[in-house]
Amino acid sequence: MPNFKIIIEYDGGVYHGWQRQNNQATLQGVIEAAIGTMTQQKVTLNASGRTDAGVHALGQVANFRVETALTAEVFFNGLNSLLNDDIVIKDCRVVDESFHARFDAKSKLYHYHIQNSPLPSAIKRQYVWYIKRPLDMDKIQAAANHLMGEHDFKSFEGSGSPRAHTTRSIYRAEISTDKPGRLRFAIKANGFLRFMVRNIVGTLAEVGLGEITPAQFLGILQAKDRNLASPTAPPQGLFLVQVNY
Amino acid sequence: MPNFKIIIEYDGGVYHGWQRQNNQATLQGVIEAAIGTMTQQKVTLNASGRTDAGVHALGQVANFRVETALTAEVFFNGLNSLLNDDIVIKDCRVVDESFHARFDAKSKLYHYHIQNSPLPSAIKRQYVWYIKRPLDMDKIQAAANHLMGEHDFKSFEGSGSPRAHTTRSIYRAEISTDKPGRLRFAIKANGFLRFMVRNIVGTLAEVGLGEITPAQFLGILQAKDRNLASPTAPPQGLFLVQVNY
Repeated sequence: MPNFKIIIEYDGGVYHGWQRQNNQATLQGVIEAAIGTMTQQKVTLNASGRTDAGVHALGQVANFRVETALTAEVFFNGLNSLLNDDIVIKDCRVVDESFHARFDAKSKLYHYHIQNSPLPSAIKRQYVWYIKRPLDMDKIQAAANHLMGEHDFKSFEGSGSPRAHTTRSIYRAEISTDKPGRLRFAIKANGFLRFMVRNIVGTLAEVGLGEITPAQFLGILQAKDRNLASPTAPPQGLFLVQVNY
Repeated sequence: MPNFKIIIEYDGGVYHGWQRQNNQATLQGVIEAAIGTMTQQKVTLNASGRTDAGVHALGQVANFRVETALTAEVFFNGLNSLLNDDIVIKDCRVVDESFHARFDAKSKLYHYHIQNSPLPSAIKRQYVWYIKRPLDMDKIQAAANHLMGEHDFKSFEGSGSPRAHTTRSIYRAEISTDKPGRLRFAIKANGFLRFMVRNIVGTLAEVGLGEITPAQFLGILQAKDRNLASPTAPPQGLFLVQVNY
């Protein structure tokens, strides 16, 4: 049975997250429905991971297996024409039958966008976290350096969704700026716990505001206690940029 | 009676254009209502010009006169707290009683954003015009050069809204790119006819596609016949950036 791998960009603000739910428009739900329309079959779409409500993707990866004579190109064009313009299928190809978008993912890259300026932006509001008070990028980077390498990230796991294994390896953790007032935090790891990026960013923001020192940030990481981390950063600044296999 | 000048950023996709209408959310309507809430008076807001439904602003200017003891700073903070986050008051100050945002405007700068790439963007869809076929920027610039200076722009005036005087002076008309696939057309003039920027951009796009030569573009301008221009470009790519006094 052919196995199709798709790469997807979507505006997470329009949907109630990735995972299929009854009576809610979700990304998995609407894309599976479009595949169903094309194949007249019930198809399950496996994503590299579930993005939460409001979180965007530039390069989400998913796969689906279906008995069909339709080619990857037909799916590519057909899905793009069936789906609303808040979802774009950027690539579709046939892959090895064993490929699984979640289990085979080696690493993922997320970006988190912060607008740090005296005034918010009406135009960017759905794609950034607005923070009015000035953030100290050097302090944020000093704290982020403590994330590098293999650690138990229990302190940054969302409550209510515990995993048995909470150790992950961070390959990159960088704050940068391209325009005045626009900050981007890039984080790449072999895997992420639920809310992990947003909890890290929420805590890094307090470092940038001077409320937590980089050394205290390290202490929070080492404590493996999620009560110590700062509030979760809001979803609309977060983008799943790339999944590597 | 104090006269307040405000600078406004807004997401035009949320509103039915600038101009107040019954039973429709418009920018003038909601901002006047917020001023009314603060002053308990009926206030008229004069903008530098009406933006059409779907057109955005980074620097719309408007003024209002009201008998009040409230300061500019109180209006600035109060309006920003009363208005939705799709409208941001970027500045508010008391100006000379004679100042009028429309009649005193000396020039305006608009940007028009085009995404020109094999695939559209789910994230940018509400802020760009997506054109799939490659545009030739050199041809567009060669045509745009013909706009510079004083001309009768009747060919680019929207139908159904004729003005007695259709001569305007263009001070700048430049196509540029910052990222692959992202084009920005900047146009500055002492004034604009209704739909003028979008009609110019629609026609320049056909120049970029090779369907009209730069010389033919000049011919369209000189003909003063709006039946010759190309279809109007869609509103969501257009931003009113700055109004100069």
